[in-house]
Amino acid sequence: MTYRHPDRDQIRIEGVLSALGHPVRLSAVRVLDAGGEHNCGSVLRVLGITAKSTMTHHWRVLRDSGVIRQEPAGRENLLTLRRVDLDARYPGLLDAVLVGAATDGVTTG
Amino acid sequence: MTYRHPDRDQIRIEGVLSALGHPVRLSAVRVLDAGGEHNCGSVLRVLGITAKSTMTHHWRVLRDSGVIRQEPAGRENLLTLRRVDLDARYPGLLDAVLVGAATDGVTTG
Repeated sequence: MTYRHPDRDQIRIEGVLSALGHPVRLSAVRVLDAGGEHNCGSVLRVLGITAKSTMTHHWRVLRDSGVIRQEPAGRENLLTLRRVDLDARYPGLLDAVLVGAATDGVTTG
Repeated sequence: MTYRHPDRDQIRIEGVLSALGHPVRLSAVRVLDAGGEHNCGSVLRVLGITAKSTMTHHWRVLRDSGVIRQEPAGRENLLTLRRVDLDARYPGLLDAVLVGAATDGVTTG
């Protein structure tokens, strides 16, 4: 299964902010930003989330807003943060958000 | 009528991002950021919104998240952007958001 992603110039700031404005999604983005290869399962393990089905919606919101890419890789989906695209469109935004999330100690619950 | 506002240290980044992640609210914040004294009516006039009632919810979201203050001033409510508080908590965030909103030409509809 392949997913549709907005092109860089189709990304809208209100969509990005709305996508990041949820503790579970913001926590997932922090995991992706911390580096390493991630699929859905590995992010959930880091976050301590066991209900995989509830994340399907969150991955879609992050994907549709242009925050992440979700692409098939073997039997899994590789998840990546679209940092280059986001930094190009909104300089300084992602860094300010991630620093703020660290300041606030955003967690999934 | 007086409204409750979170103290600076009660502001949470996911709440701020969620509040800003809506075109009407983001447009209203841009109006407040542009300067001048504003009440609900004057912001609506700038935005070209005639349905005052639909804004009541948006003002509450912006207020509860710590993005704006809404305080009685005579027979009106004075609206102000909490720039000092937001800049103190999340350096660079509000500027990056406002620049991004300008880039995208965010409007209310």
